Amino acid sequence: MTSERVGLWLNGGRGSVATTAVTGLLALRAGLTPPTGCVTELLDAPLPPWDAFTVGGHDIATTPLLKRAESLTRDGVLPPGLVESVADELAAVDAEIVPGYHPGAFTGSQQDAATRLTGDITAFQERHGLARVVVVNVASTEPPATVTHTTLESLEEALRTPGPVLPPSSLVAYAAFQAGCAFVDFTPSTGVALPALDELARSKSLPYAGRDGKTGETLLRAALAPMFTSRALKVLSWTGTNLLGGGDGATLSNPEHASSKSISKARGLAALLGEDVTAPLHIDYVPDLGERKTSWDHVSFEGFLGARMSLQLTWNGLDSSLAAPLVLDLARLLAAAHAAGRSGPQTDLAFFFKDPLGSTEHRLAEQAQALHRWARTL
Amino acid sequence: MTSERVGLWLNGGRGSVATTAVTGLLALRAGLTPPTGCVTELLDAPLPPWDAFTVGGHDIATTPLLKRAESLTRDGVLPPGLVESVADELAAVDAEIVPGYHPGAFTGSQQDAATRLTGDITAFQERHGLARVVVVNVASTEPPATVTHTTLESLEEALRTPGPVLPPSSLVAYAAFQAGCAFVDFTPSTGVALPALDELARSKSLPYAGRDGKTGETLLRAALAPMFTSRALKVLSWTGTNLLGGGDGATLSNPEHASSKSISKARGLAALLGEDVTAPLHIDYVPDLGERKTSWDHVSFEGFLGARMSLQLTWNGLDSSLAAPLVLDLARLLAAAHAAGRSGPQTDLAFFFKDPLGSTEHRLAEQAQALHRWARTL
Amino acid sequence: MTSERVGLWLNGGRGSVATTAVTGLLALRAGLTPPTGCVTELLDAPLPPWDAFTVGGHDIATTPLLKRAESLTRDGVLPPGLVESVADELAAVDAEIVPGYHPGAFTGSQQDAATRLTGDITAFQERHGLARVVVVNVASTEPPATVTHTTLESLEEALRTPGPVLPPSSLVAYAAFQAGCAFVDFTPSTGVALPALDELARSKSLPYAGRDGKTGETLLRAALAPMFTSRALKVLSWTGTNLLGGGDGATLSNPEHASSKSISKARGLAALLGEDVTAPLHIDYVPDLGERKTSWDHVSFEGFLGARMSLQLTWNGLDSSLAAPLVLDLARLLAAAHAAGRSGPQTDLAFFFKDPLGSTEHRLAEQAQALHRWARTL
Amino acid sequence: MTSERVGLWLNGGRGSVATTAVTGLLALRAGLTPPTGCVTELLDAPLPPWDAFTVGGHDIATTPLLKRAESLTRDGVLPPGLVESVADELAAVDAEIVPGYHPGAFTGSQQDAATRLTGDITAFQERHGLARVVVVNVASTEPPATVTHTTLESLEEALRTPGPVLPPSSLVAYAAFQAGCAFVDFTPSTGVALPALDELARSKSLPYAGRDGKTGETLLRAALAPMFTSRALKVLSWTGTNLLGGGDGATLSNPEHASSKSISKARGLAALLGEDVTAPLHIDYVPDLGERKTSWDHVSFEGFLGARMSLQLTWNGLDSSLAAPLVLDLARLLAAAHAAGRSGPQTDLAFFFKDPLGSTEHRLAEQAQALHRWARTL
Repeated sequence: MTSERVGLWLNGGRGSVATTAVTGLLALRAGLTPPTGCVTELLDAPLPPWDAFTVGGHDIATTPLLKRAESLTRDGVLPPGLVESVADELAAVDAEIVPGYHPGAFTGSQQDAATRLTGDITAFQERHGLARVVVVNVASTEPPATVTHTTLESLEEALRTPGPVLPPSSLVAYAAFQAGCAFVDFTPSTGVALPALDELARSKSLPYAGRDGKTGETLLRAALAPMFTSRALKVLSWTGTNLLGGGDGATLSNPEHASSKSISKARGLAALLGEDVTAPLHIDYVPDLGERKTSWDHVSFEGFLGARMSLQLTWNGLDSSLAAPLVLDLARLLAAAHAAGRSGPQTDLAFFFKDPLGSTEHRLAEQAQALHRWARTL
Repeated sequence: MTSERVGLWLNGGRGSVATTAVTGLLALRAGLTPPTGCVTELLDAPLPPWDAFTVGGHDIATTPLLKRAESLTRDGVLPPGLVESVADELAAVDAEIVPGYHPGAFTGSQQDAATRLTGDITAFQERHGLARVVVVNVASTEPPATVTHTTLESLEEALRTPGPVLPPSSLVAYAAFQAGCAFVDFTPSTGVALPALDELARSKSLPYAGRDGKTGETLLRAALAPMFTSRALKVLSWTGTNLLGGGDGATLSNPEHASSKSISKARGLAALLGEDVTAPLHIDYVPDLGERKTSWDHVSFEGFLGARMSLQLTWNGLDSSLAAPLVLDLARLLAAAHAAGRSGPQTDLAFFFKDPLGSTEHRLAEQAQALHRWARTL
Repeated sequence: MTSERVGLWLNGGRGSVATTAVTGLLALRAGLTPPTGCVTELLDAPLPPWDAFTVGGHDIATTPLLKRAESLTRDGVLPPGLVESVADELAAVDAEIVPGYHPGAFTGSQQDAATRLTGDITAFQERHGLARVVVVNVASTEPPATVTHTTLESLEEALRTPGPVLPPSSLVAYAAFQAGCAFVDFTPSTGVALPALDELARSKSLPYAGRDGKTGETLLRAALAPMFTSRALKVLSWTGTNLLGGGDGATLSNPEHASSKSISKARGLAALLGEDVTAPLHIDYVPDLGERKTSWDHVSFEGFLGARMSLQLTWNGLDSSLAAPLVLDLARLLAAAHAAGRSGPQTDLAFFFKDPLGSTEHRLAEQAQALHRWARTL
Repeated sequence: MTSERVGLWLNGGRGSVATTAVTGLLALRAGLTPPTGCVTELLDAPLPPWDAFTVGGHDIATTPLLKRAESLTRDGVLPPGLVESVADELAAVDAEIVPGYHPGAFTGSQQDAATRLTGDITAFQERHGLARVVVVNVASTEPPATVTHTTLESLEEALRTPGPVLPPSSLVAYAAFQAGCAFVDFTPSTGVALPALDELARSKSLPYAGRDGKTGETLLRAALAPMFTSRALKVLSWTGTNLLGGGDGATLSNPEHASSKSISKARGLAALLGEDVTAPLHIDYVPDLGERKTSWDHVSFEGFLGARMSLQLTWNGLDSSLAAPLVLDLARLLAAAHAAGRSGPQTDLAFFFKDPLGSTEHRLAEQAQALHRWARTL
């Protein structure tokens, strides 16, 4: 599949993660940077090369990629001088980003909205002669949503009536599948995690993966919690405080939106350590941190004969820098899965996600092994 | 093998780790504590039960176990009230601890010394009708030693001449093998890690394992370093500061002794991350910490497009509490290996050690998997 | 005044802080411990000696002091062996603790309740022939309360009607003043911080001090925030996470109760650094921590030419150990102030409090200097 | 004195601190930055304004200021875009920096070298019509030096013979005094801290100040150690680990050079807390940190009844950003002191230094008060 052209369609194509991913893709293609942080470079698998990709997307924001990239340079996400080197290609990608779906600005049925979204993706695919397109959701986190329609039939009937039925992230997944695309949910939003959408993906033999990219505190927890269990040490409490600036911080300073993320994080910890661990978790918006995220975890555990011990972790990360290469990795992996005819949730990609769809494995090393095995079967 | 009696012979039988292990064994046997921290409880293998063990040992110290246990209670290693409950049994074990080998107090050939040590172990085995004995070295860390005799023949010839040829830890391993015992090196001392002693173990079909129990900072590193490599993140520096009180701290405040430990730690980090990581390491003696050990690690790493990020870890552990259950685990595992006729270094026990003899695997999860596989073959 | 007898009346006399203070007072008197943590030992002032004090109190709890002291020994607050040495004296103090005011269990007017409380204190004073009594509130933190009666006259009129007018902490202060006692508010509850109670204290020429003992995170902030301001460094954000076990943690896990404490803490930071510092603050209940309190502060600041820097603080304290000597200090200081005829809020005691009544000085060093100056004038 | 011109002569004028100070001075003068970090802005004193200064200096390095400033921009010390705005003025200052004294490259007597240095400064002063010049040493840290000549007479006799008598920092101080200049020692090198140089300064009625700018870990210690003492808490140990990149890190990775700094730091801690505190200190060179300095302090302390508690501090600072405004502050203060006819060590400037010459006051708040008082007397 190395000679075919592949599309990467980013929902939220002008956000920090998307801008970093696109700028990085252009830099990789131009040989301006090594592929640090790109997990697919470690795999033994026939994946599309960096220069096979054409990028487009949806966004309700209008700030151009170039301007966003300059802001990310000031915040230490992008290295000085890079944006200037790829400015023309950034502008070309920006021209492929079309208005996204905004529930507040839309009056018809969601079916009409979906048809428009599907049409955008199909037109992109045809315009560039792409063998396939992978749609990745990197838009802002939504509050948790309740969707009562559990079959595709009842969902589609509801979509045809006026008024909102699906949250935006799920409408995007619906539109992606209707366009025959593989789908990746990189956020904790509802997205593809609905029985009716799973039914749709399987009926069209489309692969998907999600949910919520594992980029910071949860990555650490997935690596460290198994240390305690494999040593038969009893974790009593694992508390977390997350300080975020940037757009993500502003969104998550809304408790309703934050709850999607907190639920996703808590689920992983309980899966790793059991339900009875005290695990308060806070997300604070601290604007001066910019794109930096600082988290502090305090782990209290009991050892032999009841001895009390503790571990503290302070993580100082750049979320967009951690997320962007995974977005590119997932684009390559889902393109290959699509080419190989895989269908439904790709559970062996749990390595990438806080809340892996279809998988109960949360231990990082075991997830890495599953990924490597899966890649060899492509 | 569940009905046979097994011996556990502790070299350094009156130290903190030994005292904690013995007190804990007595508490487990009496049902006074759950087996928190005991890895063998997670394995699917025919291992000797806690009440199969009789304990004895060598030590040059004369402070009785009971007194040491009281001091460990004050330092938070043993829970209040436990020592009183097992005082009689502690005294019985103390009566089985005989004077160890002390190079400064010995004038004959080391062969004579070894013969005496072997005789002590054999007499213990016969006195208690033990099917087998596992010797575990938990004595104080020695400085690095140079031993030039690489064959068993040349070594034994040298041992018969007056003057020291082997460091004490290696003489103990030699004596253990001469007594037909399995051997575990829980310290970073030279111990069994010599070609001539490997030759001796194999010639007598005896299993052994080592070296340097992995109980704190290195345990964390073995769990976390693979997180970075599996995510293709580039670790630039990983610095460590260790604050130790207690007897271990006093010993390691001697730079010569500390160098054994530092070498052992550095080797693991280089194996996990490559040789070019800046990794200064300090061990400080801070008497007020008592049995507590506090370590601070600062990890600086590079992600996508050269982004700079960091992680800090503060570990607050009780080394004896972390080491003691592993000593009991290793006694059970080596007894089973001995019963199963295994010979030479048991490389699948790398999970337990900072510097695993015969193994290049330093990743904790992979070590845990190897241990579980190995246990199922017993 | 060194030969006179003085009373210390603890509201909440069976809590952790009171138990630690009483046990410590007995130990100091018996010469069993040095006065570590007692600030009055550093002062040049005629204060009542440790053996001048007789202790009594109110509490709605019935767990005896001795039992509470044993629990505090297990939690590391009291040293092993001490409680046994002072058991008889502890029992004697326990006999002086009478039932406190409990709004839910009381049906008459609050004036009747206050009369009973005043009577208890007066009887204690007469029974022991005490020259004066200092009442210290160390009961659990209440939620914020609104009291609309701003004059003593209107307050007393309201108190005579059935139903609650004052929160318990304020009723206790009212009763103390009616008994002619000096009063200390060691908690963030409303207590004495009401105009009508200030009027009462002044009318009776009684000194008082408060509010909310400064024992951990806020102590650190009072010491460190002036570092930034004196160096003209601009603090951008100062976030705090507090992990508490124990009874205090359980009380403060109730957000309504916690808000009293959070308000008190935030006020101090704003006074030190200005209103525009981002300062989210969390208090989490983590039962396994017992009496230990762990707090993490992250300070982000800007230096010359906009350079961004940070400081992190992890405090691991025993709140009762930090509070108890201050309670004893305040008993000595208020007794001396009472003897010297001081009246109203003793603003020069701001050193002891998170939210110092009558003072705008929050810088620790300046508070210490004011205390030393004040002491010399006694 | 507001209308007169003043000179600032930087020994080590092309280093990181000097480059940051000069760039910052130009930015302040142009109104491009607020005076964050400049302590003199808080003082009530007649000090020379920013635009009164002309800058020159000595350096053995030849990398132009402009190039150095670009490197400091990449490292986050200088904000993007600033250097371009002041490039011409930077070049003008660079033209005033002349070759410094390098012992290895010099063959005559040190008297000849000093005469040349004095001449450089005098020519600078005359060329620009400066009312006075303040010489500030910001060159690399030297190893500790022994100077046996305790009187000016014997020193000058020795200087006239061939071969080195004084370390470079002291020769610079000698030359500065001979030129009639005030002198500031911002490094831990020997510099002016010699009886013979004190004699020279006094004989010429010249003020001086030093030693070793207090910019990071020691600043924290000076703020926090008094918290413990004022609360009668007993500090048992205070350990420190410093991770440095940059040129300073490279210099201090040489243990001989580091010992000057370690001695200076240890002296302060002992003065604050007493001699019996366990206080191991490490300085590690970690190149990837660039201009950033990360330090970790662990403080173990004892409270009431022997309770054990701890505090950890992680400081993440930019040393040049912290040092540069203090260099400008000291230039203003010493210029004013010189104008006011002050002579000898200005002990009330202890606020600025790790190892304050002529002062035993190490408490930060008291040092700040002394500074403010002193400034009001100018």
